[in-house]
Amino acid sequence: MQEIKVQLTDNKKEKPTDEQLPFGRYFTDHMFVMDYSQEKGWYDARIIPYQPIVLDPAAIVFHYGQTIFEGLKAYVTTNQDVLLFRPEENMKRMNRSNHRLCIPELDENLALEALKKLICIDRDWIPTQEGTSLYIRPFVFATEPYLGVAPSTTYQFVIILSPVGAYYKEGMNPVKIAVESEYVRAVKGGTGDAKTAGNYASALKAQEVAEKEGYSQVLWLDGKEHKYIEEVGSMNVFFKIDGEIITPAINGSILQGITRKSVIELLKYWEIPVIERKISMEEVYQAYKEGKLEEAFGTGTAAVISPIGELFWNDYKITIHNGATGELSKKLYDTLTGIQTGKEEDPLNWVMKVEG
Amino acid sequence: MQEIKVQLTDNKKEKPTDEQLPFGRYFTDHMFVMDYSQEKGWYDARIIPYQPIVLDPAAIVFHYGQTIFEGLKAYVTTNQDVLLFRPEENMKRMNRSNHRLCIPELDENLALEALKKLICIDRDWIPTQEGTSLYIRPFVFATEPYLGVAPSTTYQFVIILSPVGAYYKEGMNPVKIAVESEYVRAVKGGTGDAKTAGNYASALKAQEVAEKEGYSQVLWLDGKEHKYIEEVGSMNVFFKIDGEIITPAINGSILQGITRKSVIELLKYWEIPVIERKISMEEVYQAYKEGKLEEAFGTGTAAVISPIGELFWNDYKITIHNGATGELSKKLYDTLTGIQTGKEEDPLNWVMKVEG
Ligand SMILES: Cc1ncc(COP(=O)(O)O)c(C=O)c1O
Ligand SMILES: Cc1ncc(COP(=O)(O)O)c(C=O)c1O
Repeated sequence: MQEIKVQLTDNKKEKPTDEQLPFGRYFTDHMFVMDYSQEKGWYDARIIPYQPIVLDPAAIVFHYGQTIFEGLKAYVTTNQDVLLFRPEENMKRMNRSNHRLCIPELDENLALEALKKLICIDRDWIPTQEGTSLYIRPFVFATEPYLGVAPSTTYQFVIILSPVGAYYKEGMNPVKIAVESEYVRAVKGGTGDAKTAGNYASALKAQEVAEKEGYSQVLWLDGKEHKYIEEVGSMNVFFKIDGEIITPAINGSILQGITRKSVIELLKYWEIPVIERKISMEEVYQAYKEGKLEEAFGTGTAAVISPIGELFWNDYKITIHNGATGELSKKLYDTLTGIQTGKEEDPLNWVMKVEG
Repeated sequence: MQEIKVQLTDNKKEKPTDEQLPFGRYFTDHMFVMDYSQEKGWYDARIIPYQPIVLDPAAIVFHYGQTIFEGLKAYVTTNQDVLLFRPEENMKRMNRSNHRLCIPELDENLALEALKKLICIDRDWIPTQEGTSLYIRPFVFATEPYLGVAPSTTYQFVIILSPVGAYYKEGMNPVKIAVESEYVRAVKGGTGDAKTAGNYASALKAQEVAEKEGYSQVLWLDGKEHKYIEEVGSMNVFFKIDGEIITPAINGSILQGITRKSVIELLKYWEIPVIERKISMEEVYQAYKEGKLEEAFGTGTAAVISPIGELFWNDYKITIHNGATGELSKKLYDTLTGIQTGKEEDPLNWVMKVEG
């Protein structure tokens, strides 16, 4: 494995206090950078002071969006250990995204080493208050200055770190979500199952419209028939209907969330039945009318578990669990965040200690 | 209209000779830049020496692909005039793309002025040999350093210029195209009708596969049923079947090409019937089997008209016009390039002289 050079800053930034922390607005003192060329492969792994990226205006990323990213978090335990939650899963998904976007594969071990080393260097930036964490954003982008539509021959891989505040500042708060009827996020054969910029660009408009109407995010339906449930903003989604837990099956157009995977594994570990299958909005609505829609929640790195209090679909307001957090949502949230922060047993071996 | 400041380079680059010119690899001495903030709107319009773009690593464009672009060409006539081809259409489409991507609208007149002024300053870079031109790339990207998925509050609008070689170096050369059976470029409700990075990122993989099999580009089918023809790489597509000219209707998922629009208008001007409607690959194949598939061609700024000599679909090789350029393709190419370079009458008032 190649050596990671380190150049420390001599100009440390002032740190925000834990209370002030929003999501994704503050960045730590250092960043990890590595370059790629066809001759050298991935080379020059280095940790350097946080600084701007300098690119030719013709760099492919600006024009053809050849770029992918990941998102995960580090937490400080009460013993002052630093924990990562299933980071190898993020590294694997990063390479799946790379593959879809014609970006050369990264050495997953090196990427993980880089990430840990960077965290150690900026360890003081990890917030400690309940619910806070250090958000980690690895990303790769095409740097070749060329206006032809073709995979770049050069890339940069960067990791930046952002201390982030508690998602739920006043206890768990169910969200209101609008079911999107016009726009489409992704379709089978597209890039929906990769974590790539274009998927998010395409989602901005629908989100803007939903927010104007008082909904915090949109629930996407499939691109072919506009019937089947896909996912929510940057979360996968689960429903509890008549005692059964259902989540849309992986189908090529939804992101394979790591929180989703963990929820499924945890439910199985608890011996609670969970089914991955197609589920239509009509089915959810029918269940609601019959009084069988017991809970709904989103899963993702940012909020971990996000109970859904209301769905707005075709002029129907579907209220779930009286707009309050359901028992299962709460239990999953407590268990997952407990494991992530080292407060609970880790029966499935998910957390990784960052040492050094 | 705001004033455009000019700062000239004192370090002019060496120009490539016309014979050496590839597509999109050389850039001129200057670029146009303008910034946007919520307080100031679009401000600080300026022409400056061609130079790198400097962005925070958290800039939204890297992560969520909030960016759009345009592409058009300038030509030098034998009288040394510089002509643009329907540039107002590009400016209109740019704002339609901006709208889809939640990017603030640009002043189309100012953008056009900027483009013309930049061309005048770098006029010496416009190649003059038959078939060469100056490719113009306006683009807008989100610059705010923020990892939340939301429209940026700051942007940059940039125009760069690239002298490009003749597309057909040894006469018109029909291309072989593979009909894509697995990947999908866009679906109604997505961003297919906007000129935005994600559409091209998503296309890279299919193109890579097609190229390995000896095809220069892919023909996209619709994302819902995988039956209807959409477009080709960066071209719209036309078929001549049994004397009738057919092109897929604008449907929300294909780009509204300006060459496409011009071909339709030109055919109407010539009183040749042209129909915009849904057309399936099955229909094209049936026409081929019945000997009625007379011509097929792509339309786009880069090649203007690109005759299609072969389509590969579901293991069938569909040879068109014996793999040679059809009469209509040739006539359209000659007329359009004639108008663009000032060699032919411009009956529909398409060209705009760049003066100053
Ligand atoms: C589109 C989308 N879906 C789902 C998720 C959830 O994935 P994870 O649980 O790995 O954070 C994310 C990312 O966070 C996402 O961006
Ligand atoms: C996807 C796509 N389709 C079609 C076209 C053709 O459009 P135009 O004729 O305006 O160049 C382009 C761009 O050049 C394109 O990128």
